[in-house]
Amino acid sequence: MPFELKILGCNSATPAYGRHHTSQLLHTGKNYFLIDCGEGTQERLTQYKAHTGKINHIFISHLHGDHYLGLMGLLFTMHLLKRSHDIHLYGQRGLDEIILTQLRYSDSKLNYKIVFHELDPKIKENIFEDDQVEVYSFPLKHRIPCCGFLFKEKPKPYRINKEKLTDDISLQAIASLKQGKDFIDERTKKSYKVEEYTLPPRKSRSYAYCSDTKYDEDIIPIIKDADLLYHEATFLADKAKWAHLTFHSTTHEAGKIAKAANVGQLLIGHYSARYKDVTPFVEEAREIFANTILSEEGQLIEVED
Amino acid sequence: MPFELKILGCNSATPAYGRHHTSQLLHTGKNYFLIDCGEGTQERLTQYKAHTGKINHIFISHLHGDHYLGLMGLLFTMHLLKRSHDIHLYGQRGLDEIILTQLRYSDSKLNYKIVFHELDPKIKENIFEDDQVEVYSFPLKHRIPCCGFLFKEKPKPYRINKEKLTDDISLQAIASLKQGKDFIDERTKKSYKVEEYTLPPRKSRSYAYCSDTKYDEDIIPIIKDADLLYHEATFLADKAKWAHLTFHSTTHEAGKIAKAANVGQLLIGHYSARYKDVTPFVEEAREIFANTILSEEGQLIEVED
Repeated sequence: MPFELKILGCNSATPAYGRHHTSQLLHTGKNYFLIDCGEGTQERLTQYKAHTGKINHIFISHLHGDHYLGLMGLLFTMHLLKRSHDIHLYGQRGLDEIILTQLRYSDSKLNYKIVFHELDPKIKENIFEDDQVEVYSFPLKHRIPCCGFLFKEKPKPYRINKEKLTDDISLQAIASLKQGKDFIDERTKKSYKVEEYTLPPRKSRSYAYCSDTKYDEDIIPIIKDADLLYHEATFLADKAKWAHLTFHSTTHEAGKIAKAANVGQLLIGHYSARYKDVTPFVEEAREIFANTILSEEGQLIEVED
Repeated sequence: MPFELKILGCNSATPAYGRHHTSQLLHTGKNYFLIDCGEGTQERLTQYKAHTGKINHIFISHLHGDHYLGLMGLLFTMHLLKRSHDIHLYGQRGLDEIILTQLRYSDSKLNYKIVFHELDPKIKENIFEDDQVEVYSFPLKHRIPCCGFLFKEKPKPYRINKEKLTDDISLQAIASLKQGKDFIDERTKKSYKVEEYTLPPRKSRSYAYCSDTKYDEDIIPIIKDADLLYHEATFLADKAKWAHLTFHSTTHEAGKIAKAANVGQLLIGHYSARYKDVTPFVEEAREIFANTILSEEGQLIEVED
């Protein structure tokens, strides 16, 4: 089952050097989750052959323009592409008003319904769940209300060890073993032990998205042990004071959070437009947390199970 | 004095085939007029080395997303670039509310002032004037209130014929001749006739921008004799019925308006995303009006005087 993240935009406040405003697409199982939607995201979705029609859930962390100004255009394009099924939109208070105001003045009625889920920027809460995945929002510390998102696969079934399979095993036995329960066949009196007939379940993967935020240790227990952590690193380490003043983070701060949270891999991004070359970002972050990579547009990051 | 139009976007509702939403930049004399501002316009301004900082007037024809969704991002970028001088924004009722709502939720206070000029979509009116140019808005027939814009250079001074200049001509004589007035030098009793000492003034150029509109002969007297006319041509001629229903125009209709208005050159654009190759657009329009060109992004169209 895929669990892969496509980077659609990786810059902060202004586009520069071919880098655009923040947006990411997480494909996990049957879901395509769009995370933030900076200006021009619809074009990057086309450019990187992402499946716009398959996106049913859009998560907007906060209402700074570089995180949502591509949303209205995307919603209009979905309408023009004859979308008819609901879109679920998760965002801060006011995002619905921003959308409705623009729909009103353009005298537009979309072919599909937008189901708006207002985030509570003060608590961690479960905002989505299906049979494969759970999504949580949690507070970040930014200049305006801002949420991070945690995407977690649900526990997976035990895997039947095909080498141990016999022709007489029943479907009930397989179903029971997959759930991690031993099974006794009433007819044959044969006993099937989980430890004998199965391999352990595949890992349930998780992705934590933290943008935008100043250095904040309060998030550590929430994102603990995530396989992949995106943490903003708007500035290089020498700009720590400025980062703090603007409620952003540096490379070293992102690295510290990754290390303390014991994540598998750290992905940094949201680079300030003042930097042309972003190589120093990954070099600095790796001084604290070795397994760090840069967000680069068009890149696909796969998390293995 | 320059009078040149840069095409920043030429497509209609959705970006496609490398073509973006509508935006144009008219550079006339000391003014840089931004006309419509589709999503991603700020990026095209950078790409085509236009002078974002020199834009003091933005004209938004109507509140369909493909004509204004890049505005908010551009305004934020101007703020980040430390702009401090006013920007004059001309748009339909509601554009101010759309901007203010977004500024409010992003808790932003711009470094500069936006002076909003609400357009009256029912009449032709003078909306801007300085010593070089006048701008008029006028009604177009679209699904929602929509204005065209007419940019007209003011009458220019007579040009002194340098071959006729003598050393004893006074500054007052030159000033008078430039205004087209004969002059008698009180001291020398010498008479300076305009027809003898000057060449005719250079032509006062004009540009008419008509987007979006269905075929509408009411605009002909307003745009009469414009040197350059932009008229939308969303569809090829075989889609006339559909164009009419959606309040848009075809190639032939744009050509007919250009011909009836006796303009110098016709520029077409606002192509529907259904067309990959737009060559047939210019071929069809030329069947009616020979001097037609296509809008192509990055292109600079100079109007000679």
